[in-house]
Amino acid sequence: MSMNNTLAEIADLVREKNPLVHCITNYVTVNDCANALLAVGASPVMADDRAEVAEITSIAQALLLNIGTLNRRTIASMKRATKTANTNGIPVILDPVGAGASKLRTRTAQSLVRIARPALIRGNASEIAALHAGSGNTRGVDAAEADQGDDAFSRTLATAKALAVESGAVVAVTGSTDIITDGKRVLSIRNGHPILSRITGSGCMLSCLCAAFCAADPKRILEASAAAVAAMGHCGERAAADTALAGTATFRTALIDRLSRITGSELAQGVLCEESA
Amino acid sequence: MSMNNTLAEIADLVREKNPLVHCITNYVTVNDCANALLAVGASPVMADDRAEVAEITSIAQALLLNIGTLNRRTIASMKRATKTANTNGIPVILDPVGAGASKLRTRTAQSLVRIARPALIRGNASEIAALHAGSGNTRGVDAAEADQGDDAFSRTLATAKALAVESGAVVAVTGSTDIITDGKRVLSIRNGHPILSRITGSGCMLSCLCAAFCAADPKRILEASAAAVAAMGHCGERAAADTALAGTATFRTALIDRLSRITGSELAQGVLCEESA
Amino acid sequence: MSMNNTLAEIADLVREKNPLVHCITNYVTVNDCANALLAVGASPVMADDRAEVAEITSIAQALLLNIGTLNRRTIASMKRATKTANTNGIPVILDPVGAGASKLRTRTAQSLVRIARPALIRGNASEIAALHAGSGNTRGVDAAEADQGDDAFSRTLATAKALAVESGAVVAVTGSTDIITDGKRVLSIRNGHPILSRITGSGCMLSCLCAAFCAADPKRILEASAAAVAAMGHCGERAAADTALAGTATFRTALIDRLSRITGSELAQGVLCEESA
Repeated sequence: MSMNNTLAEIADLVREKNPLVHCITNYVTVNDCANALLAVGASPVMADDRAEVAEITSIAQALLLNIGTLNRRTIASMKRATKTANTNGIPVILDPVGAGASKLRTRTAQSLVRIARPALIRGNASEIAALHAGSGNTRGVDAAEADQGDDAFSRTLATAKALAVESGAVVAVTGSTDIITDGKRVLSIRNGHPILSRITGSGCMLSCLCAAFCAADPKRILEASAAAVAAMGHCGERAAADTALAGTATFRTALIDRLSRITGSELAQGVLCEESA
Repeated sequence: MSMNNTLAEIADLVREKNPLVHCITNYVTVNDCANALLAVGASPVMADDRAEVAEITSIAQALLLNIGTLNRRTIASMKRATKTANTNGIPVILDPVGAGASKLRTRTAQSLVRIARPALIRGNASEIAALHAGSGNTRGVDAAEADQGDDAFSRTLATAKALAVESGAVVAVTGSTDIITDGKRVLSIRNGHPILSRITGSGCMLSCLCAAFCAADPKRILEASAAAVAAMGHCGERAAADTALAGTATFRTALIDRLSRITGSELAQGVLCEESA
Repeated sequence: MSMNNTLAEIADLVREKNPLVHCITNYVTVNDCANALLAVGASPVMADDRAEVAEITSIAQALLLNIGTLNRRTIASMKRATKTANTNGIPVILDPVGAGASKLRTRTAQSLVRIARPALIRGNASEIAALHAGSGNTRGVDAAEADQGDDAFSRTLATAKALAVESGAVVAVTGSTDIITDGKRVLSIRNGHPILSRITGSGCMLSCLCAAFCAADPKRILEASAAAVAAMGHCGERAAADTALAGTATFRTALIDRLSRITGSELAQGVLCEESA
């Protein structure tokens, strides 16, 4: 219950502080990302030109990097923005979308881990494995089957811990059970619903929420990330219950609706979180 | 009532004429922009490659420039498109998203005001101040707090008038009360709802609607812009009433629904518009 | 009824095989495209950098090319991706958005027909005419009035057949009656609803569905394309019935909802398809 209260407190802090999150992200889900950030009480600013990213990062409270539709131009902008973030002590959140699916993605993600010194890396099991091992079996942008299921869980946990230790970042791996670890402490979250994987953008939105939550409480990256993961999972559950059988687009609408109404006290009741080592 | 009827008439003209609006805009809200244009009876065409923008502008009835995710490539395309627009007498509508938040945005917006000779500039108070003064206190893409509230209203009005005079454009500043001015005449509109600021794209959609309305009645830019502002505000009010408490995504859906059903006669009843000097 | 069962069977195959569709597409409707693919049981991957497109195509079961917001960079990526697709026998689906509206679009579409050897070309009557004749009267991205209506139907059918013969591709022309032809066989589909043209993305989503259906049954491109066209038309009819009068955004949500629930057996009942020569 104490951990649930901590996560709830951080969710309330986001609405209180209204952090500005600078997103350099893909053009597929960017609208959902902006709306999800607004929903939870943060402000999004999307800017990816090399000539302005440093300035934009300097007025933001978090920098979100998502390589979903990376290209040479935006990779350079991401790298430049991270310098400002690191200099100014602004947390960097990295979503290595599709790492493992192409050399460009794997190498870019790995190089961003080195250069950006992210506070948090948030991905699925295949992406995290690709970042750690240098090659994975990512299938497009979804986790490969070999990286799903209970058998794979302990392997994923070990990989996440190892990546956290070698990168210095908190690592959040989302799946049927979500893992958030700094290499020592491990928070497991069992919120969520399978329909989240039937819409595009649930992972991207979650990474943005993580950025907002880390911006609101930058000294507790582990807990802030867990709060974002829990909020997304909880709102996904509730949205699925609200809209059972209507279809995936209605679910997407209901999910963002739920995010726009979530409060700390509701979250404290709904979180299914356990800490282990 | 006479002004309300004028605005209503222009709204009906959009559905009658089905103007084609060439948009060079950001990738965050572009889908909402296209759907908003279709909703009110216009046709969107998005094209931003330097090799085709002149040709696309030449078949359009308005050119919309939005610098929300500007980059070197699209800035060049915007400049090229404005030449065709000016040569062919096609109204240019400028949305200086985030002007004041980075030098790139401020300078690009200012240079577009000079080069594009826009018929209309539509922004929030911070963006309009940045365009006028060369520097503002824009916070990301939202109006800074110092530019909101009653205290700031008379300052904003003076800035809008001054920018209109120096640029030759009509200036529309949106906020709790919207101001549309050509430097002499001032129309104030009190439609709208606070939830509009909790979704991304309400400003971008509005600028697109302004472009459609100006395309339908290019000799009455002041009134056409006011009609678009009033339509957005009125539909926002109604959508908020339709969907109270459901959340921001349902509101967004309801807003575009309302735009897709708005008629001149409904608008004539709903507009809260006053003219002053 | 036999044809309806074939189309239904292919719809079920998509959910069974969960094909990965590599999309190089426009930034206006890309989110709808991703959600539509997920809805019918396929997986989308959007990637457009020259450095990774070959690798991404090589893990996909179809390559979708949509020139809605083409630019120099993505045109080069499209061309490179088609080489991998052709080498690996992966079907290429081409959506020549706005062909006829600018030289860049017309020439790019024509050159993609030559280079990409598409399995399917899916467009409206104006776009297909532009591809065939080298110049059309496309109005922005919508079919020109001269290309709509019963008078134009037989002309469109002749053009579609001729383009199919000269390109070696199946050609699908969508309008009030949809035509799918390989130059000899002709399938006509009368499903659909006028409101589909009041939202952006219905054409783009349809082309993506065609890619998914062709990926699931690459030996029957004609039937797979017809199944996708029928599924979109049928779901559009049902979504319009579900949401009558609510507005275009609610319709869009309902359309994707319907796609997310469509089954072969429902489709078999709903398809209005005739074969002629």
